[in-house]
Amino acid sequence: MTILQSINSPSDLKKLPPAKLKNLSQEIRDLLINTVAQTGGHLAANLGVVELTLALHYVYDVPKDKIVWDVGHQSYVHKMLTGRLDKINSLRQYRGISGFPRVDESPYDIFNTGHASTSISAAVGLALARDIKQENHSVVAVIGDGALTGGLAFEAMNHAGHLGLDFIVVLNDNAMSISPNVGALSGYLRKLRMDPAYSQTKEEVEQALLRIPGIGANLVKAAGKIKDMVKYLVVPGMLFEELGFTYLGPIDGHNIEDMIVVLQRARHIKGPVLVHVITEKGKGYPPAVENPDVFHGIGPFDVATGKAIKSGIKTYTQVFGEFMVRKAESSPDLVAITAAMTSGTGLDVFAEKFPGRFFDVGICEEHAVTMAAGLASGGLKPVVAIYSTFLQRSFDQIIHDVCLQNLPVVFAVDRAGLVGEDGPTHHGVFDLSYLRQIPNMIVMAPSNEDELNDMLDSALKYGQPAAVRYPRGSGEGVEIKNSPEYIPPGKAQLLQEGDQVLIVAIGRMVNIAMNASVYLRERGISAAVINARFAKPLDEDLIGSWAGRCRRVVTLEENVLMGGFGGGVAEAMNCKGISAEFLHLGIPDSFVDHGAVSCLLEELGLDAPSVAASIINRWPELIKQRVIRGL
Amino acid sequence: MTILQSINSPSDLKKLPPAKLKNLSQEIRDLLINTVAQTGGHLAANLGVVELTLALHYVYDVPKDKIVWDVGHQSYVHKMLTGRLDKINSLRQYRGISGFPRVDESPYDIFNTGHASTSISAAVGLALARDIKQENHSVVAVIGDGALTGGLAFEAMNHAGHLGLDFIVVLNDNAMSISPNVGALSGYLRKLRMDPAYSQTKEEVEQALLRIPGIGANLVKAAGKIKDMVKYLVVPGMLFEELGFTYLGPIDGHNIEDMIVVLQRARHIKGPVLVHVITEKGKGYPPAVENPDVFHGIGPFDVATGKAIKSGIKTYTQVFGEFMVRKAESSPDLVAITAAMTSGTGLDVFAEKFPGRFFDVGICEEHAVTMAAGLASGGLKPVVAIYSTFLQRSFDQIIHDVCLQNLPVVFAVDRAGLVGEDGPTHHGVFDLSYLRQIPNMIVMAPSNEDELNDMLDSALKYGQPAAVRYPRGSGEGVEIKNSPEYIPPGKAQLLQEGDQVLIVAIGRMVNIAMNASVYLRERGISAAVINARFAKPLDEDLIGSWAGRCRRVVTLEENVLMGGFGGGVAEAMNCKGISAEFLHLGIPDSFVDHGAVSCLLEELGLDAPSVAASIINRWPELIKQRVIRGL
Repeated sequence: MTILQSINSPSDLKKLPPAKLKNLSQEIRDLLINTVAQTGGHLAANLGVVELTLALHYVYDVPKDKIVWDVGHQSYVHKMLTGRLDKINSLRQYRGISGFPRVDESPYDIFNTGHASTSISAAVGLALARDIKQENHSVVAVIGDGALTGGLAFEAMNHAGHLGLDFIVVLNDNAMSISPNVGALSGYLRKLRMDPAYSQTKEEVEQALLRIPGIGANLVKAAGKIKDMVKYLVVPGMLFEELGFTYLGPIDGHNIEDMIVVLQRARHIKGPVLVHVITEKGKGYPPAVENPDVFHGIGPFDVATGKAIKSGIKTYTQVFGEFMVRKAESSPDLVAITAAMTSGTGLDVFAEKFPGRFFDVGICEEHAVTMAAGLASGGLKPVVAIYSTFLQRSFDQIIHDVCLQNLPVVFAVDRAGLVGEDGPTHHGVFDLSYLRQIPNMIVMAPSNEDELNDMLDSALKYGQPAAVRYPRGSGEGVEIKNSPEYIPPGKAQLLQEGDQVLIVAIGRMVNIAMNASVYLRERGISAAVINARFAKPLDEDLIGSWAGRCRRVVTLEENVLMGGFGGGVAEAMNCKGISAEFLHLGIPDSFVDHGAVSCLLEELGLDAPSVAASIINRWPELIKQRVIRGL
Repeated sequence: MTILQSINSPSDLKKLPPAKLKNLSQEIRDLLINTVAQTGGHLAANLGVVELTLALHYVYDVPKDKIVWDVGHQSYVHKMLTGRLDKINSLRQYRGISGFPRVDESPYDIFNTGHASTSISAAVGLALARDIKQENHSVVAVIGDGALTGGLAFEAMNHAGHLGLDFIVVLNDNAMSISPNVGALSGYLRKLRMDPAYSQTKEEVEQALLRIPGIGANLVKAAGKIKDMVKYLVVPGMLFEELGFTYLGPIDGHNIEDMIVVLQRARHIKGPVLVHVITEKGKGYPPAVENPDVFHGIGPFDVATGKAIKSGIKTYTQVFGEFMVRKAESSPDLVAITAAMTSGTGLDVFAEKFPGRFFDVGICEEHAVTMAAGLASGGLKPVVAIYSTFLQRSFDQIIHDVCLQNLPVVFAVDRAGLVGEDGPTHHGVFDLSYLRQIPNMIVMAPSNEDELNDMLDSALKYGQPAAVRYPRGSGEGVEIKNSPEYIPPGKAQLLQEGDQVLIVAIGRMVNIAMNASVYLRERGISAAVINARFAKPLDEDLIGSWAGRCRRVVTLEENVLMGGFGGGVAEAMNCKGISAEFLHLGIPDSFVDHGAVSCLLEELGLDAPSVAASIINRWPELIKQRVIRGL
């Protein structure tokens, strides 16, 4: 039995002698690499926090103490230590354990995460609740240096510092090296500050400084604030101190003993504490250390070589990236913006070729969009590439800064629809609803990668805000035309004539609609199929004329039904006074779990056989008609 | 002719001798007070920026140079100086000039604003566009200290500092006094830094410091970074310097000459510059200085006394505020959160009586919501009071942090629907659409203030996320029951039976539906009226049975039609297989201008006579039927 197998909960961990923790971390690393090689997932981040997670569970008593994992993709080690070791092979798989903390999965998961920069706000709320209820426990937010750039994290730090709340922020800094500017006095003071007698000792230092000739006489009086002066002179975390935090660090995040000492001290300091931990992303697996980007979120890969196991079909993301590079060559006013997802959105080649026109703003989706409005206002053509789920963060900026001024910003909304293994925090199933309600906004979704190419090119010509949403992963494998075709705003496409049912589909669902129509045909039912292309403006004429003819309208989308594409078709038909019966198919009004997209589509009744069955179920007379006709 | 009348554009301003600017500011103040006393508006903020605006237009050449006014409610002075003096009496009135910058109103308005914290992002975009297009002009963002707490502003500062962009942030700090901690050396260095020869001189200072005994020997070597040391010792804007900005200030924002000198210097400094200007909100009008909160955004008032001219009917906001105070007495787990709108949301009495359970997080709507999720997760009952338009900023936090975990957070969504004079940036016309699409969320809107009371009380009992949206301004004048009535989730109310048309209305539109039904009755048309109460879940049974009976369904809402309440009713009826004809009335797919709510409703065809007319227009046979029946 390995050490890891002997740990059923953090209390078992606490029984281990510290010396054994090192062996345990090796076991965990091996298991991480072998598990993620099969399941896919966020390997590099988890390899980086092995020792940190051990130290946290060694010092704190979860679930009494509350640990909130920012983003949460680094929680695999935490899951292994909190009773889920036997399920680790089911990680991110359909009906298996989630790749993120889930309160409904374990009492050790305190707060659900998935999007970045939320942990400090959540921890502030948890700490306030504790104080109001006069409870007594620690609250810890574990946040990466990337997530810390998000405005939400800053808002929370600023507020927590003002409140003087007792809680701890562990800054998991993935930088490869400790800042070279940390001097000797800083190191000395850092050690002092980690001492429980910190305050007293600090004052002694100040007194000592005051006695140094020159300082007492000239600077101290002038600066007026000797305490702050000492801080500013020597503490690298001065920014945090200015926000009201006690700064501890930096600490080597792979030295468990050091972290245990520091985290124990942090627990007893009054007021907000920031513990600055330096870790290495991918630690212990050379391919991940060398390519932390690639191993940030990866599909199944070969452990020996570190090479991903991939399908040969181009992804929508790749098609977008190639479009941007091609387009930039002929359009000097084209600029690209992303929020910490350069390679994720396929913009890496663009970034390399056109560095002056590429802006990665960090995990700052709001700034990305308002800045794009500024760029458009300044006469450029900005393309903002953000995943659907993260673009939710820019909802107000899209309304207020882009659409109100009708600025020609193009949104490349990647990972729209079901994203699969990342689950409910990451499914992009709201965008058709939240984008189509905004005046001046054009909303498109291609049915294949060639149409994506057409739509991107067309969107840049519309001269107004336009969003193109497309799925994660492989395209349909169709060829991409040499020169894209212009699609006028709101122009849909009739794919198939029919006279009993009209299926209006959008995006990836178009092909499912076509397949469903084959099932229907086999049962003698004649279905017209329209590729709507646009969720807004709708091609009311084309849809209207076929709706009027078929009298039965099925809408099909990979988006929530509430306020979605189907609702829009119904609204438009109602407005035109076309009376027809409707069947709206899409994502129901509940959050969709993780798992392979094909499993999820089947579960939701959105695969072709289920779509055909739903249609027959809604209008059983269609079969009767056939029987009658067949007789 | 006054000096002000002689200014048709900023170029006239530049011809004035600086000495005259003081007289001009007095003229502007008088006009501001007398104008806003009649039109209502943001008086205090404008009184505070009279000299700053003069200095900015004196130094910069707008529209060649770009000034972005954060929030924009402080742009009245700017409007007076840029060719709109003759229209100032129409400020905020229907078809008059806007109370915010509007690019479609004047070439001197560079970028539309209304919501806080956007200006730096917009300015970053404008400055990047300038550099990419190799143009040559200044870009300035003018932002208040309140707006600077928003995460978006931080994201933009952090990015701009990293880019090293040439642009200027003017921090309009309304604090009443300059920080007392500014010492003599700081003042000395500040002057040095405003000098073009800054860098050289700074080094001289550093050399001088190095020569001081004790520093050279002990500290400098130890700290390793003498440049930073000097900064941290003496510069109050150290936080900004750390973000990569050159900090100038603080400067007296009512001393035009000083500001002109500093702004001219700022123009020539490379890289991002932050000019810290100290102003007094309400400057020059004692009632506004004494009550800057009241005079932040005010309706018409009496100039002599400073007393607002108000209607006697309680506002929805007041009813909410009173509910919260009453409820808090019996519910020790009730906590209230607002984002810089304590009195605006009616929480001032709560804040005074229950300071330990009240949290004003500043202009941080995202943090407010995620923190509320933390509070709920910690076992409390948080009520988040944020205006509809500002809650757009928390869209992702509502989905990801509240609804995904199904946490019982109650949203008091004030200023929902048309808000009147503040116009398109402030209308709360999207919330029914953006909230109802989120799983687990209950969405309500009361038809009067008593029902608001019922709904708030009920929402706290649902044990899941719930939003109550209610309008700005006076209620309907109905009495409020002593003890609120429990409304089960999704329970609508049949107000009137009828058999030809069903009107399903929500919120303030319910009374308009009732009034419209009177018009219809006069023409012999029998209309059933349902107060839906819930946009989600819908009372499908009640609506369905009357829809089935009437076969003609009118939906009526003060929200965009796209994805709104009416679309929801259609989706639900389609799902139930109830076939009926629909007429959806609400806000069309375009932004609604400013003006009195009554004017806007009329323009949009949402007053009772227009609603009745639209119904008859949609179904002219209703009149024919009557004629036939009448014969």
